[in-house]
Amino acid sequence: MHALKVTRAEDFPEWYQTVVREADLAELSPTRGSMIIKPWGMGIWERIQGELDRRIKETGHENYYFPLLIPLSFFAKEAEHVEGFAKEMAVVTHHRLKAVDGSLKPDPEAELTEPLIIRPTSETIIGDAFSRWIKSYRDLPLKLNQWANVMRWEMRTRMFLRTAEFLWQEGHTAHVDEADAMDETMLALEMYRSVAEDVLAVPVIAGEKPENERFPGAVRTYSIEAMMQDGKALQAGTSHYLGTHFAEAQNIRYQDKDGGQTLAHTTSWGVSTRLIGGVIMTHGDDDGLRTPPAIAPRQVVIVPMLRGKPEDEELKAYCASLASELGGVSVFGSPVRALVDLKDARPADKRWDWVRRGAPIICEIGPRDAANGQVTFIKRNALREGEKIKSHTLPRADFVAQVAAQLAATQQELFAEAKARLDKSIRSDFTSFADLERYYGTEDTEGEFKGWARVPWSRPTGAALEEVGERLKALKLTIRNAPLTQPSSFGACIFTGAPGVEEILIARAY
Amino acid sequence: MHALKVTRAEDFPEWYQTVVREADLAELSPTRGSMIIKPWGMGIWERIQGELDRRIKETGHENYYFPLLIPLSFFAKEAEHVEGFAKEMAVVTHHRLKAVDGSLKPDPEAELTEPLIIRPTSETIIGDAFSRWIKSYRDLPLKLNQWANVMRWEMRTRMFLRTAEFLWQEGHTAHVDEADAMDETMLALEMYRSVAEDVLAVPVIAGEKPENERFPGAVRTYSIEAMMQDGKALQAGTSHYLGTHFAEAQNIRYQDKDGGQTLAHTTSWGVSTRLIGGVIMTHGDDDGLRTPPAIAPRQVVIVPMLRGKPEDEELKAYCASLASELGGVSVFGSPVRALVDLKDARPADKRWDWVRRGAPIICEIGPRDAANGQVTFIKRNALREGEKIKSHTLPRADFVAQVAAQLAATQQELFAEAKARLDKSIRSDFTSFADLERYYGTEDTEGEFKGWARVPWSRPTGAALEEVGERLKALKLTIRNAPLTQPSSFGACIFTGAPGVEEILIARAY
Repeated sequence: MHALKVTRAEDFPEWYQTVVREADLAELSPTRGSMIIKPWGMGIWERIQGELDRRIKETGHENYYFPLLIPLSFFAKEAEHVEGFAKEMAVVTHHRLKAVDGSLKPDPEAELTEPLIIRPTSETIIGDAFSRWIKSYRDLPLKLNQWANVMRWEMRTRMFLRTAEFLWQEGHTAHVDEADAMDETMLALEMYRSVAEDVLAVPVIAGEKPENERFPGAVRTYSIEAMMQDGKALQAGTSHYLGTHFAEAQNIRYQDKDGGQTLAHTTSWGVSTRLIGGVIMTHGDDDGLRTPPAIAPRQVVIVPMLRGKPEDEELKAYCASLASELGGVSVFGSPVRALVDLKDARPADKRWDWVRRGAPIICEIGPRDAANGQVTFIKRNALREGEKIKSHTLPRADFVAQVAAQLAATQQELFAEAKARLDKSIRSDFTSFADLERYYGTEDTEGEFKGWARVPWSRPTGAALEEVGERLKALKLTIRNAPLTQPSSFGACIFTGAPGVEEILIARAY
Repeated sequence: MHALKVTRAEDFPEWYQTVVREADLAELSPTRGSMIIKPWGMGIWERIQGELDRRIKETGHENYYFPLLIPLSFFAKEAEHVEGFAKEMAVVTHHRLKAVDGSLKPDPEAELTEPLIIRPTSETIIGDAFSRWIKSYRDLPLKLNQWANVMRWEMRTRMFLRTAEFLWQEGHTAHVDEADAMDETMLALEMYRSVAEDVLAVPVIAGEKPENERFPGAVRTYSIEAMMQDGKALQAGTSHYLGTHFAEAQNIRYQDKDGGQTLAHTTSWGVSTRLIGGVIMTHGDDDGLRTPPAIAPRQVVIVPMLRGKPEDEELKAYCASLASELGGVSVFGSPVRALVDLKDARPADKRWDWVRRGAPIICEIGPRDAANGQVTFIKRNALREGEKIKSHTLPRADFVAQVAAQLAATQQELFAEAKARLDKSIRSDFTSFADLERYYGTEDTEGEFKGWARVPWSRPTGAALEEVGERLKALKLTIRNAPLTQPSSFGACIFTGAPGVEEILIARAY
């Protein structure tokens, strides 16, 4: 018996929705395609923001805030970008409502001369500012970031993974030349790898996207790809070298040292609340989420076993002093986040609420614990022994002395578990497309999943690449990226038979 | 000669726009009515957010995120609220663009069945969630907050003070009864007072708004009012007790202890990026902004007097080690935020850039300072002696030892200066409306401004209050609030001659 009604093996997509709901992370809103992010989900996002924002600032970027609404004409400037984004966007056409026959309607007299688009991403309006701000080589590099909500109209939504509105961070930079812009592109990618692996405990593979998977308008797109427990890939962050495409479209030129006018090279890069979906599908189990301690809004939750009796007060005092003592301990560079759960509910219900949310350490303190000066607790990432819940008891002083090490160990264990799964689930023994077809052409058996393939290819382009895409699509597969770390020699391309020039990752993907 | 081209005395509104631009706080964007917030402005906002968010969480509120877009029908539910907000709002009517004759247009086939409104505030969509989440008295109080962008279409915009899009925080809570909801309303008001006075160094007067100035749908509205240097009032934050109006409109009911169904009492409260406008008009001078140290993105800026010579390296090393040493000092609970400005520009230009932005302490380090182990610096809030810039020199160890005390003193001095101005600029000697008319009926003389009036009134309501409003409007005056602190007896009402029941503040306002 597990805490969730559906297991990963039974129905992974349904399990995912159940965790989102039961861990109180988010819920669907009455606005089609948008979600309400609840405190446990928001607390995780705030910690991701904090960790990433620190890295962004330490590497010389500054935060700005640009308008939510972008004039329609801005999207017409960069042809490929329009093609990629101009389709499904929310369009503001009126600025006033009017009561007509007792119901509210957009006021025809308040129609905008030029419609405004809710930003799907901000290259166009930030590029416009770059063209005004950048005059000389002395103004470069210009490295900025913004935390914002963006909107892409989506027909099929899935919470955190694909919603019309989502929260994200978008970095935008301008540089004197390709070399400097490429350094920036790789720096952003490395920040993302570090946040994914060191903060979210989600192992990823960083690499370059094939040309047909590039961001609209980019010269090169890089991604970090994470493996979910169903073997699918989740693109968890992207970094783009945009060359001079946006600079040409928006006239971003600078006076170089010789007095000439030169086009700037730009980059952009982003990660979003989608990362939370990745955390769920990496660390969740059949009892709910296991939140990595580094991002857990509460790292230690203390549930007093109250009985509505006079002794309760003593128990509450014991728990409060324990929480306060824990707050004096430092872990991951901050005080331990401890909470005494005094909600008016049964202690057992409270325990299971925290198990489903995945608080890393859950203490259940009864009168005997208080009397003996001890702490009884469960570790969320090693919840059970067989079917039984595994409980531990330590003298209070020992518990407090060990709590930081315990949380750090949990963080490591979650990463190691996911890393072992990733490593063993990438097959690199396919030598032909027929091999691949045989393997991915069969259904997964219950509880077993097919992981990724790592294969050599000859890096076809244009029509030849499109054909590769079609062949993979028939197997519901896509090329994820060409990992940054490559061997020194390659087998023959499994698509064309030509000599391989690099290895690529192939997977089913979210 | 001052650093700005226009002084406060010459043209206060023009001076304000000049500070916003020259202190690099924000600029107008190509999206009508929206601004681009730049790093110095954003850094100030991030620190306001941090301080307020901590207080919000410490008082038991949790952060959520609700959708940007609200279905139109939600606005029809609470009649007064619609009346107050349904007019100037951005309306999304389409979800796709289409290329027509080479230009992009909203696709007629992608018209939404129900238009969506960009939130002007979120009572309606949050109330809808409350009605689903609140079942029993055990679910109360429900205390939530969200940090978000909102939009109110404005015809005349002024940066930070009134823009179509702005950033804010909105608290929304539900309670079992009026007493609990009123405690919450006053708690939020007190948080705002504390952030304004203790963090922004902006003295305020907290009080209740008259009925004609209430938030649409509120039973009682409270505000904090700050005095700008031109004598006008700035409403810097509001807190609303909404009674059961929204609960009725949205069916927010709970099962009470006796099993009956009872309407919840709700509150809402918010502050926005407008606070930055208040900081500028409270602390700015004719050399730019004087940023209160508690919210200054950089508290100590070190400008090395580089000459493009080999000795520069030694100077840079001295400055870097000074900055790093300052980073080890704690002030206002955080490490001192020090920066070495290595931008490729003339040292004198850099100094003036930081004077205009209002970095609290600006160090100018030349080879002699480095050789003698000393620090030469200016204090932004006491920049000049007569017309001359006043510079100080201290042994480096003394400078480092005193820096925290110096920053704390600056924070206090800025507050004391503004408080003295507020106190001396409230006249309470008006005994009739004719008195008021005589005083406010004349033009301000250059550099002199009229402050506020504090007068007794009989708290007229309905048509009588409207008449009072009209009489004040003719003098460009409004009632700001009835201060929380009141004397024990009152003179006659200056409007009606009837016995006074409280004192109110009257002022010109932003």
